[in-house]
Amino acid sequence: MSGPTTAVIGAGISGLTSGKMLTDYGIAYTCFEASDRIGGNWAFGNPNGHSSAYRSLHIDTSKDRLSFRDFPMPEDYPDFPHHTQIKDYLESYAEAFDLNRNIEFQNGVQHARRLDGGGWEITDQAGAVRRFDHLVVANGHHWDPRYPDFPGEFTGRTLHSHHYIDPRTPFDFFGARILVVGLGNSAADIAVELSSKALQTEVTLSTRSGAWIVPKYVYGRPADTMYRTTPYLPLSWQRKIMQMAQPMNGSNGTLYGLPTPNHKFFEAHPTQSVELPLRLGSGDVVPKPNVTRLDGSTVHFEDGTSDDFDIIVWATGYNITFPFFDPDFISAPDNHLPLYKRMYKPGIDDLTFVGFAQATPTLFPFVESQARLLAAHLVGAYALPDVAEMERVIKEDEAKYIGHVLKTPRHTQQVDYFIYEHDIRAREIPAGRRRILAGRR
Amino acid sequence: MSGPTTAVIGAGISGLTSGKMLTDYGIAYTCFEASDRIGGNWAFGNPNGHSSAYRSLHIDTSKDRLSFRDFPMPEDYPDFPHHTQIKDYLESYAEAFDLNRNIEFQNGVQHARRLDGGGWEITDQAGAVRRFDHLVVANGHHWDPRYPDFPGEFTGRTLHSHHYIDPRTPFDFFGARILVVGLGNSAADIAVELSSKALQTEVTLSTRSGAWIVPKYVYGRPADTMYRTTPYLPLSWQRKIMQMAQPMNGSNGTLYGLPTPNHKFFEAHPTQSVELPLRLGSGDVVPKPNVTRLDGSTVHFEDGTSDDFDIIVWATGYNITFPFFDPDFISAPDNHLPLYKRMYKPGIDDLTFVGFAQATPTLFPFVESQARLLAAHLVGAYALPDVAEMERVIKEDEAKYIGHVLKTPRHTQQVDYFIYEHDIRAREIPAGRRRILAGRR
Repeated sequence: MSGPTTAVIGAGISGLTSGKMLTDYGIAYTCFEASDRIGGNWAFGNPNGHSSAYRSLHIDTSKDRLSFRDFPMPEDYPDFPHHTQIKDYLESYAEAFDLNRNIEFQNGVQHARRLDGGGWEITDQAGAVRRFDHLVVANGHHWDPRYPDFPGEFTGRTLHSHHYIDPRTPFDFFGARILVVGLGNSAADIAVELSSKALQTEVTLSTRSGAWIVPKYVYGRPADTMYRTTPYLPLSWQRKIMQMAQPMNGSNGTLYGLPTPNHKFFEAHPTQSVELPLRLGSGDVVPKPNVTRLDGSTVHFEDGTSDDFDIIVWATGYNITFPFFDPDFISAPDNHLPLYKRMYKPGIDDLTFVGFAQATPTLFPFVESQARLLAAHLVGAYALPDVAEMERVIKEDEAKYIGHVLKTPRHTQQVDYFIYEHDIRAREIPAGRRRILAGRR
Repeated sequence: MSGPTTAVIGAGISGLTSGKMLTDYGIAYTCFEASDRIGGNWAFGNPNGHSSAYRSLHIDTSKDRLSFRDFPMPEDYPDFPHHTQIKDYLESYAEAFDLNRNIEFQNGVQHARRLDGGGWEITDQAGAVRRFDHLVVANGHHWDPRYPDFPGEFTGRTLHSHHYIDPRTPFDFFGARILVVGLGNSAADIAVELSSKALQTEVTLSTRSGAWIVPKYVYGRPADTMYRTTPYLPLSWQRKIMQMAQPMNGSNGTLYGLPTPNHKFFEAHPTQSVELPLRLGSGDVVPKPNVTRLDGSTVHFEDGTSDDFDIIVWATGYNITFPFFDPDFISAPDNHLPLYKRMYKPGIDDLTFVGFAQATPTLFPFVESQARLLAAHLVGAYALPDVAEMERVIKEDEAKYIGHVLKTPRHTQQVDYFIYEHDIRAREIPAGRRRILAGRR
């Protein structure tokens, strides 16, 4: 093992994948994990409080699309595995590549301070102060609940989707009048689960900006296997083609009473739900526009209507938070975190962010792609460009990936996997190598 | 009021529709209803035991397709109304046409005997013996549970779908290993509901003959609004066209691990379920072929596998039963009930069956169509052909509607609504009028 000594924060998908790639490239590293187990978000009931998985959660990406490119999922897995199966898969991944060896469990990072002139001083959970050459931030972005700020006060019970487990946990939803706020995957799943007539509930779904609702299957095949972009045509053209095919898939939520989306099809991450359109069309979930005001047990909506509720479920997303950094060092206000290739902050070459993106249609291979660049960097086969060039590219990429969508905290991190992966593999890693060679000349 | 005195057995959809039409045509009638309420199958928890509705049941026909042609559903109804809404709709129908006036509640028919030379002797629940000129049988065909006959004995709990209410009723399914047998709409709905991860159950679905699984929505529109046959082309050609479009709708259950259907697309009534393919594809419902043997808590399947279960739900359909007839007078062994236009038994002109069909894609207007012929008959504007002609037509129609499907009890009653309705309105009623005129000459 050689190269810079490296600390990795978190043993979720991003931390594990980074660790696996660093091992492959012979880089020594220590992974700090606050929990007693790997898996992060996918470790249901994770004692570190960072799992947002509910009991019924299934991955919304089909297994072949989701698989790490270098570690396929078991053949007997269903098309859309359950969270317990994702966790088992990550366990076998860790076992196959002997990753646990480098993980310090129940020893998260309390504070990370960049030293003048580079390098890091890490204070761990046990109180030890340790030095590393390089820091990899892989603490995830689906664990710090984001709450909206509506005027007034609601006197019923409230719950963020992060804390939702099932219709009996953390409290009994039986017979309740429930408002679910949001229209992401969690909002859709939770609204569907709680609107089961067996629970004798009344469920209302309020959304600010609408969304396109895509099914998990099209023509009986996993729908995401039909999403394929190419780096050889402008992404905007490819979006146009997908928009032309949109009426074929019934993804327009207004057909089922939802507000008109404030963006075109595939301009932002769509919501995947087979069941939500059916529940809306069966009257089991009542659609409403955005909340305007809370008043006791009453909630007022933008269309002038109001209704009384026992419980509000805030399925309103997550903040990107780095509790181990001083806030004036690095933070992500409104989830805006401008990074070069979504990995590097200009001017800080010894810090790499991994996994901070909403990659369509798949996350695991996206993280693998980032980990590959990370490893090339640490092994000395890749150099970053200068700060001015990094700033320029950040602006260019933002225009490409998120320039067309409303600047909401939900969509700041959108990336097209196919185009990103091709860019990293075929363009950025070779360019970084050329920069090294040019520097040596 | 004039015409033959008429008794109607049952105040469900068929009895109500018949009553409405008889009132329109000025025919005096008495409707006998064992329950204290109208609605039959759609009166959830009906004290007469004849409702098969579970708490979460929504109609599988979209509201505009389902509506009586002369009484549209309320505009604020969802696309696929809940059973409580269907019941409310039937209540308003009864109120609008003052139908309850002619119904004797809690007074079903105990026995119906045909008198020599015609006419009927009815013994009612109260013990009174009453005479009528004409009898309308509208007692429904979804209330007498049909059980399969597998060798061996199962020692766990069993339940027919007829008695299923919700995951807590009639007993608590929480945590149980459940086998659902069947692949009709009830089987699909119940397997989906019980496989909710929130219930921590394990659900297996066993099917003998497979089925085509069609969604409730296609392109965001109720799928049944796209089913339209014409009487001006042979039905077999039209089925061919639908079969060519089949791969577009993902209805092939083998994509999700179900056995290959033993019939082509739309050769038999398809199963409607948006959620079942998803549950199969998520591993929440495990598909199995037919049961071969029961042995204690173990169930053996045709593929040689076996598994242990706590509960079996028999979603295996219903018998057609007429408890008020002497069995040697009229019965329907294996649900085979050969009737002229699915309404008349050759040789017994003063007896009409209403509602004994599985009409695709809609039931209520089908029953309206039958009630219209019934009323024309009773008012003297329609005459039946002679017995030989009736026998000939029965055979011809059977070949058209069910000749292509396997002769299972489930499919004996299949009818295409559009072709049937056109036949009754534009051909059969005028032909019956011509027969009268010809007889008078």
